[in-house]
Order: sequence, then structure tokens, then C-alpha cells
Amino acid sequence: MKTPICITLRTQLQKLKTPIIIGVAGDSGSGKTTYSDGIRRLIGSDIVDTIAMDGYHKENREQRKISNRLPLDPEANNLDLLQQHLTQLKQGKTVEIPIYNHATGNFDPPLPFPPKPIIIVEGLHALYPEFLPLLDFSIYVDPDHDVKWQWKFERDVKKRGHRAENLKEEMLKREAAFKRWLDFQKTGADVVIKISQSQLKEYSRHEFTAHIPEGYYKVELIVVPAAVPLPTLPLPFDLAAMLESHQPPFMLAAVPCTYWGRNVMILHIDGILSQETISELENHIVDYTGIPIEQAITKREKSQVSATEFAQLLITWRFLEQVNHILEETSN
Amino acid sequence: MKTPICITLRTQLQKLKTPIIIGVAGDSGSGKTTYSDGIRRLIGSDIVDTIAMDGYHKENREQRKISNRLPLDPEANNLDLLQQHLTQLKQGKTVEIPIYNHATGNFDPPLPFPPKPIIIVEGLHALYPEFLPLLDFSIYVDPDHDVKWQWKFERDVKKRGHRAENLKEEMLKREAAFKRWLDFQKTGADVVIKISQSQLKEYSRHEFTAHIPEGYYKVELIVVPAAVPLPTLPLPFDLAAMLESHQPPFMLAAVPCTYWGRNVMILHIDGILSQETISELENHIVDYTGIPIEQAITKREKSQVSATEFAQLLITWRFLEQVNHILEETSN
Repeated sequence: MKTPICITLRTQLQKLKTPIIIGVAGDSGSGKTTYSDGIRRLIGSDIVDTIAMDGYHKENREQRKISNRLPLDPEANNLDLLQQHLTQLKQGKTVEIPIYNHATGNFDPPLPFPPKPIIIVEGLHALYPEFLPLLDFSIYVDPDHDVKWQWKFERDVKKRGHRAENLKEEMLKREAAFKRWLDFQKTGADVVIKISQSQLKEYSRHEFTAHIPEGYYKVELIVVPAAVPLPTLPLPFDLAAMLESHQPPFMLAAVPCTYWGRNVMILHIDGILSQETISELENHIVDYTGIPIEQAITKREKSQVSATEFAQLLITWRFLEQVNHILEETSN
Repeated sequence: MKTPICITLRTQLQKLKTPIIIGVAGDSGSGKTTYSDGIRRLIGSDIVDTIAMDGYHKENREQRKISNRLPLDPEANNLDLLQQHLTQLKQGKTVEIPIYNHATGNFDPPLPFPPKPIIIVEGLHALYPEFLPLLDFSIYVDPDHDVKWQWKFERDVKKRGHRAENLKEEMLKREAAFKRWLDFQKTGADVVIKISQSQLKEYSRHEFTAHIPEGYYKVELIVVPAAVPLPTLPLPFDLAAMLESHQPPFMLAAVPCTYWGRNVMILHIDGILSQETISELENHIVDYTGIPIEQAITKREKSQVSATEFAQLLITWRFLEQVNHILEETSN
């Protein structure tokens, strides 16, 4: 599918006077980076840059201990400053963004941030109403309660060295605050990503004989359809393989419904996809964008692909629909 | 995929000395004919013929009223005679099969039945242990309780003119007999077909905005994998369409598990498939068999295809795997 726009997508993006801004909201430890990484990987990291909203916290870790104020409280963040920065970036100006250091719990010196063609804003409040008019695409990452706790423990205790007891206490304290200040943002997202433990066992009869590898979750994408859809994105599926013994399990469903007042399509993805299927999908996206993938899933020396990785491709496709629409409007 | 076997499948079938016999069991009104029709349609009705086991009932309708014996009782059927007939057909001999007339409730004169290359035996006891060694492929049709009642009423009351009150009483009387004498046959089937009301609404969030047309059910295929699988059967799926608004809903899942002591794959199919997808599948099967389809689903002037029709294609494919295996063994 090499139409003119396909060949020049990268060039068109590089020439953009106004950056395309993507907001990615969700609780701390909810996997925001995983999903924005999909776009970064498929669009090319040289034309994509990320603003971590942690830098806009008003207090460092010590100050928070004293004030007992949670970073989930929008008042505990310099959201005005971020709004200014995004406005300036939209005007093509370089801004100085504040940096929070998770290792020290302190702020590092601010860094100059030039207006890359695509800017990803990641943070607790990325889809707050004051940002929505500045965003071209919006993602809300929404793992189930138990998945979130599992991830948060793995990340903060194992990787960042926090103490487990402190973390549990802090997380319990956060739950009501999350519901009050963060959860509602899903009502403004183009894509809501719900993540839960695999539910494939429910589709078996007697004994479920498959093994779901660690890190394989069920993903539910709640997608607001694009104003102008892109052409066909074929998923090559081998039905005959499904009739063979000991095939890896999977589930795919698509259902139209309403969600907080809007018409959406919900895509359920669960289980294990074959490398061949994903490889063909990736190649199709590469053909469309003309951008070579830096790190194709299929080069990762594995034969199985998770719903998360499949979802990354679908989200990127939905983002490309948005980009296509923006480029068409710009060229008119 | 035009390998030698593909080109000559029809010729090979016509030359078969020993007919291939397919058993299709299930309760009265469970949709046995619907599923054997898929094979008939795709293999060609000139080389396929059907034996309706109703002819082997010992009593006609009047006699049953007096004896109060249900046709579900194997003792109320001449199963020995059918076993003889199948054995003779396997030897290439023509047999005289008894015919039951549903309109009159009486037996019509027996008819000569020559050994066609493919013989479908349809009836309440088609997968009884004495028949299994004579069967090359076996299907058990297993609609949910409520689907079965709905169908039975539609068929017997609307089409066959039975009285609704009588039918309900008769059906209640049959339930325990069904469980005792018929239900266990699923343990010997190559494919068990479970049919239920669509469950797609469960995959929506707020309001389910799709319409499931009348006659669209969820189908669950419980398949014993073939000894020798056939090559790829590609399902061309448009992922981009899934992201568009108001797409018809569907669900597909494949899960390996055990079922009454055997390793099986379970395929769940629900919702509405596009005509294009099914058309490509049908063409692929036609390419493989070299047999033109008499009545392609895609020529039926409709844009949507049900899980039932999709399941027919998958069952036919699984049957072709069996045929391929038989032909290879015969030629050795």
C-alpha cells in the first residue's frame, strides 16, 4: 500500500511546524511507558520525545513525607507550568522542563526540551481537562487492581529499592485519591487500555492444558473510532493451526458499545499470538509509514508474542489514523 | 495450494472402493442437518448421501403412543440392522434402508441405498459404540437447553404442525432419557458442536450498541486434533475495520484443554463475520478440494455471515484432514 502519503509520512512529520502531542495518563506503575514505547518504537525515537510529568510535582520525597500530600492531588503539581510548556512547544519554542529523580527522590536541574515532531506527555494528570485542547491523541492506561499492585511492588520494591511495608501503606493511602483525581480521565481518552490477568482458562472445559507465560496479560482496548479511518490492516490468522493439538491459546473479540457517554469499539485480546502473525502486521505498518522499525518484535528471538505487544501495534495504528487526519488538515 | 492431491481429490473420492462414513449424532431438533449440510455443500451432493436413522425406529407414532416408549431408548431402534447396513455399505454393497415419514408418522416403503463415496448417518444414536468402528468421522451436535427448546418448537409446531402443549409434555418426558441414552455419545466424537445464545453482550461496557440478527448463535467447536493436519487455512481479518465505529461484533477464541479424557482444541465463535472473510475461506477450500461449491455462502446475497456458517467451514476442513489421511493410507 504505497500511496504518496505513505512514502512521505516521515518527511511530512519532520517538516511539521506544530508538534503532535500525545497524552498518556494513568496511575504510577500502571504501565504508561510500555504503551508509549510502542509508538516510539514504530514511529522512530529520533522524531519522538517524552515529557515525564513527575518533574512537575511541587514537592520532593522528603517534603511529601512532611506535608503528607499525595502527588495524585492535582494541587500538588505545577500543572499550570506544564500547560504553558505545551502551549510554547505547540508554537515551536524550546522549553526548560523540570526533572524528578526517582533514585534520589529529588529534582535534578531542568533540561532544555526542543519541540520534536511528536511529543509524548506521560503522567498522573496527562489527560486533565486543561491539557485536552493541546493534545492530538490521548491514552489512558488502566490495569486491574491486582495487576497494578503486582507491578507496583515489582517496580518499586525490586527495582527502586523501596521497603515493601512502606509501599503497601502508601498504596492503600493512594486508592481513594486515585479514584477521586485520576480515574475520571479515562472519559477523555481516545484509547483506554484495561489490563487484567489472562481469562483464557474460562474458555476451556475440563483441564486447561496451556501455559500462559509470566508477563502475559489480557488487554482490553476501548477505542474511540477515528474521524477518518485508514485502509485495511490485515491480520493473517492460520485457522488450520487452531485445529492442531497443543496450540497456544488466544482470544480476540470486537464489540461496539457506549462508554462514559461516547460510542466506542472494545477490542479484547488475550493469550499468545504467533511471531509470524505479528511480523506481518509490523511489516504492514512499516510499509505504510515508510519508517523502518528500530527494534521489531520479530527480531527479539522469540516465537510467541503477548497481547500487550499486539495491543501496542493496534494503538500505533489508531495513532497513525490521527496523524493522517492532522497531516491532511495541515496540507489543506 | 494446487498440490497433486488437491487436483484429484474429487476423482480419488469417486474411485474409493470403501465409502467414507460420517456419523452425526444429537437429540431430535438439535440441528444435525445444518452441520452435515456444510459438508454436503462443500464436498458436492452427487458424491454424498445421507441415511436418516429415524427409519430404524421399531415403532411408528401410533405404536409409540400405546407403548409409551421413547425413540431415545436404543432398544426402541433396530440398531443391529443399521450396523449390518453400514457393514454392507463398507463392502460396497447396496442396501434397502427403512424410511420414516415425519408428516404421516408412519414408515414409507424401504428404498435402495447404493454405496456413495461419502455417507452421512444422521440420528439419535449415530455415535453408539457399535457404530464407532465403522465411522471415519464423527460429529455430536449439542445445543444448549434453551436453544434446543426454541428450535424444537419452531420446527415441530410451526413446520410439522404438532400441538404446542403436547410437544412441551413430550419434551419434558424426554429430558432424562436424553441424558441417559444420548448425551454420552459426545465422548466419542471427533467434533462436538455446542450452540448457545450469543454472549457478545458480556464483552461490552455500558450499552451494547450492536444488533445480533435472529438465527445467530454462539458456536463452540470441541475438536479432537487430526492425526495429520492439513497445511495453512488463512483467515483474512481486517484489524483496521475493528477500529471503525459500529462494526458488527464478533469473538474468536482457541484454547487447548481436556474433555472427557481426551486432549482437544476448543474454538469459540460468536457474532457476525464479513462476507469477504468467509468468501476467501470458501475459495481456499475450493482450491484445496478442486470441487466447485454448489451454493457458496457468498452467493447468498448477504453481507454478513453467522458463526454457524463459519463453523460449517471449519468442520469441513477438519473432515478434509480425515479424508486426506484415509486417502494416503489407501494409496499406501
